[in-house]
Amino acid sequence: MILEVVILNIIPGQEKEFEAAFAKASPIISSMDGYHWHQLQHCLEVENRYLLLVQWETLEAHTVGFRGSEQYQEWRKLLHPFYDPFPTVEHYEVVQDYRKTNE
Amino acid sequence: MILEVVILNIIPGQEKEFEAAFAKASPIISSMDGYHWHQLQHCLEVENRYLLLVQWETLEAHTVGFRGSEQYQEWRKLLHPFYDPFPTVEHYEVVQDYRKTNE
Repeated sequence: MILEVVILNIIPGQEKEFEAAFAKASPIISSMDGYHWHQLQHCLEVENRYLLLVQWETLEAHTVGFRGSEQYQEWRKLLHPFYDPFPTVEHYEVVQDYRKTNE
Repeated sequence: MILEVVILNIIPGQEKEFEAAFAKASPIISSMDGYHWHQLQHCLEVENRYLLLVQWETLEAHTVGFRGSEQYQEWRKLLHPFYDPFPTVEHYEVVQDYRKTNE
């Protein structure tokens, strides 16, 4: 399992429009092979900053499957106009995982 | 629920020692009030980069409770020597959450 991690800086003042576009774009990524879940999180310290997390089965499900798909062009069209600067995408893999013992 | 997000760049070559120190430090954070879970994730693109995610009940559970605790001094002693540069900590809150429909 691979976590795609992207810090998104949105053009200031366009946060609400971005959130609406993200809601519209979400079914695109959710329909991909090897997709498990994704979240849009909002930064408490920086008003126009978001965190995109996407859990993929494999790295290639994202980098080959999604990015090489026709549907990716629609995702780009909806979301890329909001990014400033264009974000760096990284992928991570769990090495240690802890939970509260009484949960 | 608040997600603490920290990108950790570790002094190159000290990755294994850092992972061992993190395993030793983990019971410290897990015992805090308002703690839910935490993960250490390793970056696929950059060998000496990690992602620390900590789920807290509230922002203050981290910034006041944990950082103001005696136990935080022990956490610092174990982990801060590995960081270069010293990381920026951010907090995020879920605004949109999606899962594969057949999971």
